[in-house]
Amino acid sequence: MLKEDLINSGAIKFGDFVLTSGKRSGYYIDIKSAYTDPEILDEIGLEISGMVKSGKIAGMELGSVPILVSVSIKTKRPFVIIRKDDLKHGTRKRYIGSINLNEEIDIIDDVATTGGSIMKAAEIIRNNGGIVKRAICVVDREEGAAEMLKENNIELYSIIKASELR
Amino acid sequence: MLKEDLINSGAIKFGDFVLTSGKRSGYYIDIKSAYTDPEILDEIGLEISGMVKSGKIAGMELGSVPILVSVSIKTKRPFVIIRKDDLKHGTRKRYIGSINLNEEIDIIDDVATTGGSIMKAAEIIRNNGGIVKRAICVVDREEGAAEMLKENNIELYSIIKASELR
Repeated sequence: MLKEDLINSGAIKFGDFVLTSGKRSGYYIDIKSAYTDPEILDEIGLEISGMVKSGKIAGMELGSVPILVSVSIKTKRPFVIIRKDDLKHGTRKRYIGSINLNEEIDIIDDVATTGGSIMKAAEIIRNNGGIVKRAICVVDREEGAAEMLKENNIELYSIIKASELR
Repeated sequence: MLKEDLINSGAIKFGDFVLTSGKRSGYYIDIKSAYTDPEILDEIGLEISGMVKSGKIAGMELGSVPILVSVSIKTKRPFVIIRKDDLKHGTRKRYIGSINLNEEIDIIDDVATTGGSIMKAAEIIRNNGGIVKRAICVVDREEGAAEMLKENNIELYSIIKASELR
């Protein structure tokens, strides 16, 4: 099972951690180191693939991209990479790939905390004519993302919830 | 064949183009738009996979990442993502994944022009104890990359050479 494999690979650690936000946490998640192992990425991709409903998938640069590509290969759906805000390249297109008018796109992410990154991706897709109704993440830290996204008409799905890790 | 598919998908266009460097070119390449189509990415991944010799592969954020992940899935090799230089995050690790001492790693890229991006990735891998002898790209624009990399003990391999596009 993915949760056990993430724990065994060291992607999820238990202990007393101080996060960069200053908050304390009883667990620590580093999906990015884990998914560079193709077996772990395959498991993540398989689980996320089963939750995708739209014909296209999108993710924010850089953390979600390996998961996005794995799901794209498995489901044969094209993908869109939303670029991070970058003032040095003001005129550059904000995404790689195509967004068609009224096309529904599912957003994929590794970890959802407050949901800010998913919401940013959704805004860029919507501003370019696309429709976003769903977001799927590997771990939902349950720190407000689901509620905030719901207010913005996005349903958040996850493989693992923080409450299962406590 | 990949070359024809890249032309048919619009990833390679022929005409009179002015590049961002100010130079004129008889062709224009945009691999990044093309590879968001999983069929094209599959073809690219398959061709690159046949050229990989090391047990691990690496690529520079962001353009090479979809190709890197596709090759990782096909060859079951773990990957390393080298982060772009980012002054805002001075203390952050320069890569995602692991580099072991004396471990040989092949570098993968979409387009090689002067080879600067591949060389930067190689330096970071070497500074962290890894060995780099080979780089593999989709298109070699033949603007000095192979020669410069050779001087730095890196052999450049490519699927398509610019001279085949003229």
